[in-house]
Amino acid sequence: MPTTWVNDDNAALFTDLYELTMLQAYFREGMDEEAVFDLFVRRMKRRNFLLACGLDTVLHYLETLRFTPEALDYLGTLGLFGDDFLEYLAGFRFTGDVYAVREGTPVFANEPLLEVVAPIGQAQLIETFVLNQITFQTGAASKAVRVVRAAGDRAVVDFGMRRMHGGDAALKAVRAYHVAGVKATSNVLGGHVFGMPVTGTMAHSYVEAHDHETDAFRAFAELYPETTLLVDTYDTLEGVRKVVRMAREMGEAFRVRAIRLDSGDLAALAREARKILDDAGLERVRIFASSSLDEYAVAELLAKGAPIDGFGVGTRMGTMADQPYLDTAYKLAGYAGRPRMKLAAGKVNLPGRKQVFRCFEDGRAVRDVIARADEDLDGTPLLECVMRGGVRTEAGRRTLADARAQAEAGLVALPERLHALDAAEPPYPVDLSEGLRRRIEEVRQALAAETHPA
Amino acid sequence: MPTTWVNDDNAALFTDLYELTMLQAYFREGMDEEAVFDLFVRRMKRRNFLLACGLDTVLHYLETLRFTPEALDYLGTLGLFGDDFLEYLAGFRFTGDVYAVREGTPVFANEPLLEVVAPIGQAQLIETFVLNQITFQTGAASKAVRVVRAAGDRAVVDFGMRRMHGGDAALKAVRAYHVAGVKATSNVLGGHVFGMPVTGTMAHSYVEAHDHETDAFRAFAELYPETTLLVDTYDTLEGVRKVVRMAREMGEAFRVRAIRLDSGDLAALAREARKILDDAGLERVRIFASSSLDEYAVAELLAKGAPIDGFGVGTRMGTMADQPYLDTAYKLAGYAGRPRMKLAAGKVNLPGRKQVFRCFEDGRAVRDVIARADEDLDGTPLLECVMRGGVRTEAGRRTLADARAQAEAGLVALPERLHALDAAEPPYPVDLSEGLRRRIEEVRQALAAETHPA
Repeated sequence: MPTTWVNDDNAALFTDLYELTMLQAYFREGMDEEAVFDLFVRRMKRRNFLLACGLDTVLHYLETLRFTPEALDYLGTLGLFGDDFLEYLAGFRFTGDVYAVREGTPVFANEPLLEVVAPIGQAQLIETFVLNQITFQTGAASKAVRVVRAAGDRAVVDFGMRRMHGGDAALKAVRAYHVAGVKATSNVLGGHVFGMPVTGTMAHSYVEAHDHETDAFRAFAELYPETTLLVDTYDTLEGVRKVVRMAREMGEAFRVRAIRLDSGDLAALAREARKILDDAGLERVRIFASSSLDEYAVAELLAKGAPIDGFGVGTRMGTMADQPYLDTAYKLAGYAGRPRMKLAAGKVNLPGRKQVFRCFEDGRAVRDVIARADEDLDGTPLLECVMRGGVRTEAGRRTLADARAQAEAGLVALPERLHALDAAEPPYPVDLSEGLRRRIEEVRQALAAETHPA
Repeated sequence: MPTTWVNDDNAALFTDLYELTMLQAYFREGMDEEAVFDLFVRRMKRRNFLLACGLDTVLHYLETLRFTPEALDYLGTLGLFGDDFLEYLAGFRFTGDVYAVREGTPVFANEPLLEVVAPIGQAQLIETFVLNQITFQTGAASKAVRVVRAAGDRAVVDFGMRRMHGGDAALKAVRAYHVAGVKATSNVLGGHVFGMPVTGTMAHSYVEAHDHETDAFRAFAELYPETTLLVDTYDTLEGVRKVVRMAREMGEAFRVRAIRLDSGDLAALAREARKILDDAGLERVRIFASSSLDEYAVAELLAKGAPIDGFGVGTRMGTMADQPYLDTAYKLAGYAGRPRMKLAAGKVNLPGRKQVFRCFEDGRAVRDVIARADEDLDGTPLLECVMRGGVRTEAGRRTLADARAQAEAGLVALPERLHALDAAEPPYPVDLSEGLRRRIEEVRQALAAETHPA
């Protein structure tokens, strides 16, 4: 039985079947001219902006994309593909160019995050994988940045892995969260793979396994002197008092850094816990909170003045619970030198190769303009060439640290109103250039002429 | 750089850091007596029942769980773990017992889907992985079964992989969807790994890449005679008429099986398309619909009498958009022969080893009773031993086909009202046995005596 995990070796099969049947059709029809596909988000819904993320995963995939003998054997069993085509697949490599927005860049609806320029079969085949990774990682970063902003100068820590959608989501999110400014993760594999700080406290079960709550606190603090103690297993404030008694008994040796609240009325409990700690001279013991948190809950706690120093944010951030997917699309914008467009209701796309220009005033982004790639407008162009002929360019080798720095700078430059949790009024303006508008009109007219006559 | 995918080799690091720090604490404290943990869903929210799924992935993980030299090297860099503990980890194996509900069984809130009985450190360490997989796979199956039910005798096909949360979700969902009765998937890797039927149509881009829509239809149908043609790229009904003209021209050679609608008012378009096809004598050409479908949309289309023969269901099912996570918990229920419980607000659990008895009347499930494992009550016990001493039992080697059959039989036996998309009134009754109630009271009293005195 094949492995039940996606990996670099089987990623070529991580595709909708139609990508392969279309690829064979292009192969048979001899259609191998250059196509332009772009990936964008149609509507942002509950987000005032998105943070572009996932490019590095995509570039790695494009560099390593191969059909293994096992994959070819399987495809052969489907009764759909000819031997000549399977032979072609055996030598398949991605040889195209990719233009992309830098990871960490704030982006908006309809702006291409990625443009792929490659022989049409190649550009088509990669659709499913590219959408899967960019949609999730951009969605995760765009959710997390809201939580981070709501928490202000308090740390946000990722506790989400246990209820996220499978292993890959939990792992890749660690990367996306770092871009968005999350401070650390509980995900050990994520720490290993992406070099992130890992952190954690203790579980209720640890407390319960001991005969007395205090025994658990003592044992854990002896082994991990600067730990965080979970105080709500039985009675939260009683738990805090036990910490205080332990501090008294231990004296100088007491170096516990924080307590953690994980249930109940967090604002009220944090205030009472703070008072108990302060009254005992334990001002330096911090209060860490978790339990069904998201940006709204964090903002509410801080608005109530809850003396909470850090937040463990799990499931709701991890599943992007208020908007579990982005409305991404990967659409043909050109083939054989001609711009292309579809007219299906509500699903129109922007034809031809494009560039996005971000215009600044006094260091603040004030407007984006989506233009033709051959236009040279005011503002900073956001799309750069990250892969040429299937090989990463210098710009395609940016580090995760660069993505985080890009996000930090990009977030500072956004109009303040976009950082609201609710819909910004007015939304950030994204215009189409005159040149692009003209092109759209031309394509529309050409299509009308083509499709409507008998 | 390590691989950015989760796999069998690095799965031991797929854990929250605290599982490892607790494991080291148990190791140091010499606490290695048997613990009982159980996994259950606290509240079902928008589901009238859940379909248990994910057990096979969990048992495979437990059988293969190892810390590789690479994993141990990484853990060594964290400054948290002693050499003796790392050496212990190098030899770590899961040697416990697992009791579980058969995959495909309908289950309800508070019922254990899984009980793990093992030395406490082992049972603790596996928490994150086990929750991650069971939460997602059970969530996915529980969502899909609603869509399948709404579609009645029409086929539901999984089109979700492009916007699901990463690679693992898209892959494991194929398994969960099969259990829930989904007929096929577009996910080629899922087809390979789980032996599922794969299917697909064509993309708008394929149509757009051709100079004329009809050229695309012809070329595709020549290569795949029994294909489905996507008709809405420019003008849906015009697209249908082109199919009709093509049928006339091709005569006997025309074997296209279906057309696909992917935008606009699907009910109205399906009716008009049906009429155009029927008027042309193409009654046998079926209508397949996709575009933002979920159980509600499918039910509405069928309620309107839309002549749709099959549904491609993607993002909303794939991300469980109306309820993107299950409120699962994995809680210590016993240690060293004594039942354990936590009392944190809203997070109480059921102490000790348990069994769930499902009571039937005239072949219909009428009530479940959660009992102590040592009680012998009326009804069918749902938990069976699937792993003993770290090795799968016969019951732990059930096939995916068995899970699907289990779901089919289980669904038929559910009271009809539970199949409504909205909240069933009354909800399915789940009681606690007398024996379990007494145990809860005893544990509560013991805890009160322990935690409240000075």
